[in-house]
Amino acid sequence: MKYVIIGAVAGGATTAARLRRMDEHAEIVIFEKGKYISYANCGLPYYIGDVIKDRNKLFVQTATSFTQRFKVDVRIGTEVTDINAEQKTITAIQLETGKTYQESYDKLVLSPGAFPVRPPLPGINMEGIFTVRNVADTDYIKNYISQFNVKKAVVVGAGFIGLEMAENFHELGIDVTVVEMGDQILAPVDFPIAAIAQQHLRDKGIHLYLNTAVEGFIKTDARLKVQLKDETDIDADLVILSIGVKPDTFLAVKAGLKLGDAKGILVNEYMQTSDPDIYAVGDAIEFPNPISGQATITYLAGPANKQGRICADNLVFGNKHTYKGSINTAIVKVFDLTIGVAGMAAKQLKAQGIEHIVSTIHSNSHAGYYPGAKRMTIQIAFSPDNGTLLSAQVIGKEGVDKRLDLLATVIKNKGTITDLTEIEHAYAPPFSSAKDPVNMAGYVAENILLGRLKIMQCEEIADADESIVILDVRTLAEHAAGTIPGSILIPLDEIRDRLNEIPRDRTLYIFCQQGLRGYLAQRILVQSGFDSVFNLSGGYLLWKSYSDEISLQKKEVLV
Amino acid sequence: MKYVIIGAVAGGATTAARLRRMDEHAEIVIFEKGKYISYANCGLPYYIGDVIKDRNKLFVQTATSFTQRFKVDVRIGTEVTDINAEQKTITAIQLETGKTYQESYDKLVLSPGAFPVRPPLPGINMEGIFTVRNVADTDYIKNYISQFNVKKAVVVGAGFIGLEMAENFHELGIDVTVVEMGDQILAPVDFPIAAIAQQHLRDKGIHLYLNTAVEGFIKTDARLKVQLKDETDIDADLVILSIGVKPDTFLAVKAGLKLGDAKGILVNEYMQTSDPDIYAVGDAIEFPNPISGQATITYLAGPANKQGRICADNLVFGNKHTYKGSINTAIVKVFDLTIGVAGMAAKQLKAQGIEHIVSTIHSNSHAGYYPGAKRMTIQIAFSPDNGTLLSAQVIGKEGVDKRLDLLATVIKNKGTITDLTEIEHAYAPPFSSAKDPVNMAGYVAENILLGRLKIMQCEEIADADESIVILDVRTLAEHAAGTIPGSILIPLDEIRDRLNEIPRDRTLYIFCQQGLRGYLAQRILVQSGFDSVFNLSGGYLLWKSYSDEISLQKKEVLV
Repeated sequence: MKYVIIGAVAGGATTAARLRRMDEHAEIVIFEKGKYISYANCGLPYYIGDVIKDRNKLFVQTATSFTQRFKVDVRIGTEVTDINAEQKTITAIQLETGKTYQESYDKLVLSPGAFPVRPPLPGINMEGIFTVRNVADTDYIKNYISQFNVKKAVVVGAGFIGLEMAENFHELGIDVTVVEMGDQILAPVDFPIAAIAQQHLRDKGIHLYLNTAVEGFIKTDARLKVQLKDETDIDADLVILSIGVKPDTFLAVKAGLKLGDAKGILVNEYMQTSDPDIYAVGDAIEFPNPISGQATITYLAGPANKQGRICADNLVFGNKHTYKGSINTAIVKVFDLTIGVAGMAAKQLKAQGIEHIVSTIHSNSHAGYYPGAKRMTIQIAFSPDNGTLLSAQVIGKEGVDKRLDLLATVIKNKGTITDLTEIEHAYAPPFSSAKDPVNMAGYVAENILLGRLKIMQCEEIADADESIVILDVRTLAEHAAGTIPGSILIPLDEIRDRLNEIPRDRTLYIFCQQGLRGYLAQRILVQSGFDSVFNLSGGYLLWKSYSDEISLQKKEVLV
Repeated sequence: MKYVIIGAVAGGATTAARLRRMDEHAEIVIFEKGKYISYANCGLPYYIGDVIKDRNKLFVQTATSFTQRFKVDVRIGTEVTDINAEQKTITAIQLETGKTYQESYDKLVLSPGAFPVRPPLPGINMEGIFTVRNVADTDYIKNYISQFNVKKAVVVGAGFIGLEMAENFHELGIDVTVVEMGDQILAPVDFPIAAIAQQHLRDKGIHLYLNTAVEGFIKTDARLKVQLKDETDIDADLVILSIGVKPDTFLAVKAGLKLGDAKGILVNEYMQTSDPDIYAVGDAIEFPNPISGQATITYLAGPANKQGRICADNLVFGNKHTYKGSINTAIVKVFDLTIGVAGMAAKQLKAQGIEHIVSTIHSNSHAGYYPGAKRMTIQIAFSPDNGTLLSAQVIGKEGVDKRLDLLATVIKNKGTITDLTEIEHAYAPPFSSAKDPVNMAGYVAENILLGRLKIMQCEEIADADESIVILDVRTLAEHAAGTIPGSILIPLDEIRDRLNEIPRDRTLYIFCQQGLRGYLAQRILVQSGFDSVFNLSGGYLLWKSYSDEISLQKKEVLV
């Protein structure tokens, strides 16, 4: 059996290695147009930022070591330009020599990846404007920084890579501006969660332009100017484009393979394309999202690796090993904060008409009495019908990845909020609390689902009319330090004695700092005959960062 | 409705608070014989060790704050001495005044907890010999340390609390000896995993006596002597007994409640005892282990809290909310290491005749190319029939709790090793790798279950007779730095060219450093016609600490 694989980074290299392990005697040829195989693409921003100091660390395998270990014919610097699916051959060109040749295959695996979007803006191809996708890009950027006196960088696009680049430039002492067309960073995350990270970025000295499109780039002296839509310019010694990526389907189209609704290569659950002798993995394929069923392209290393393994198994043993799709679990370190998301955020659920309830809690990363505990915020969305967990977003300074992984595992298993309450985590004071934050998220959601807790969201406070009473149940000191405009104060521990001060014929919006005391107050009020009582999900903490962000953006629009 | 609760720490306090939230108008009385309610008992060793500096931090609630917030009648310093289940009354004594009185109930909740074992050894009640169970114990110990010049401490019993005490004393500059009757620390963990932690304890300067029973205690001048079975003595200024705890079933027996096979209070899945008006939660109850079905007593704060919530719900809304049992997820920080376990370790599975396969892997806490990655070891046991995950043990310096929580979640859901391969974790270089350690544990187990990888264990190497060839497939440098006695070296990357050097008629035991290269070598050999090839699970790393520990213990016996 002769396997040909196109693309030797995450998905392709994994497929090749697994193929060899499962079939010692097969012929395996792998083509890679770049110079490097199986490199750590997720590490590139950190290598640029000197967090990873040794360039060699980026290379999990070299062509030589891979060949030696896996007896795979590795052809780097060789681009596949055509596929003849009928004759089962590919055409390749050795980039250095220009030599073109054909190679036959029994089974072909496509792992072409994705390419960065470069919108056709004036000046976009000038020197000093980079994307960060592969080792070559990275080398260009490192060289550029060491060669020129880079003092100002502009990052266009505030996605995961954009924010990693912003942090890494900042750590190099470069003044960083992030320009984002949307009204928030990190599009897969909901606004109130993104707001927390936006304020952290500004606190760290990053200049953040939201709702801002780039119009073009011009060169002045040794410098670039990034021209914004509102006709202001930003000086830059270097620009990073991190607007997004698109699946590289060039060869797939040439081979006559079907693309899907999301314009990725269509594969079945065995990673097999519309041609039974061609399989595909990685950033170029699309697959139904397990939550919505909608065709989705997942640009993540974890799923690509899993697909590679499944693909190899099916090639060797026949189609048995199935892929179940990705819930797009993603995480990013943004200075001292970590933000992550799994599943479909509320805005995506809304866009697709999937009914859901959103609930936000704050909880300590470990027991509050043990030193070093940090607050984290968990926002989940779940089905109002049966409590199925649809998404989770976590933000905080410690233990965020751990909680996100647990939440992602429940989402992936199509589990419910009850599963969250039953997670039996490891508890000792340095690691968690008797009730872990994921348990707490589950408990609160269970209370909501069973009608024991009625909540409202930050956004609804702004829409509250005069008929609504906003009740602050925190302490006098907390109230005095800042509150929601128009709220009246009755501390939780006084509520039972002051019921007669609270109007019975009006809707009550209750809030406390984090959400717990508001819930307790609500339980007292509801059981004391108050009919229409809602507790602010995420409490004053979430409202504060949300409303600060809204005010700031309004002000920016006015300016 | 009048609820009476006996015991106001984890389970009891949780029950009371949830009862109030669900029923604003019930009468709730809670009795606690100690002075404190709802305190952080898991924090006590760290308060003794000055890691937690402020004593007030131990108190989640005080009797006053709890009363105010939850309108609960809290009676501290009041011991319940009898229950009359027929008349539905309890008898209580106010410890300070000696006043005895009766209190009626509609529903009674028992949360009496457990008490530390104090074996009837000569001298065990002398001053300076302590247990660590409650705030009073802790205050005694702190005062004793500040009053006397404590330079040497002996900890009897190397369980979770014992090790936390050892670390905390050591951090205070006290010379610590740990004496343990068994042949390893941490009884719920398997020997090869415990061995790693034992070596770490010795490296930190803890004197560790295994296989050592204590015979008694004597006083000499201002000091204690701990007398060991082998007739040696150890000097001590202070002794901690952390031998274990037993459920406090005194009142349950008086009330005529049924105890179970494990001598804990028998409850059904609604936390209801054999008397329908009496419920029980926490360390005093027994419940079937979800894996073995065997009656088990769980001495953990997490499950106690969960039970309290379930109990309160069932009291208010009728028996609907079910408890599913605990897989005994537990974790402990031992200096720079963290060790945790969930489910039933191999020795427990063996003892109960449950068929299982054990597999051990080593993996980095996050991407190796990003600074600070630390190796961790994961040992899982799973069913040979269907891959159901039966237990997980994790040890390492970073990210141990995260992986244990994920593994525990799969065990709790009666999931399989395939679920481990499909966990879609959050990956960015600071947090994980494209394949998370839990994925890797799943992949290796899947290879074993599908017959693609045959393994043997450390223990089997010792039993290997002359007919077996032990093959080291690491590099020459690794081999030269230390290997398994009698092994021959053929580095992995040379195997394909040196097949003729390997005897075809003998069983091969292959090993590498961690297990991966051995697997690759095995795949090559099996597919090259070698029939009987086994790879050492956990590799040289696991074997080394295992065999070092065995040698050390043999030497100690000889001395």
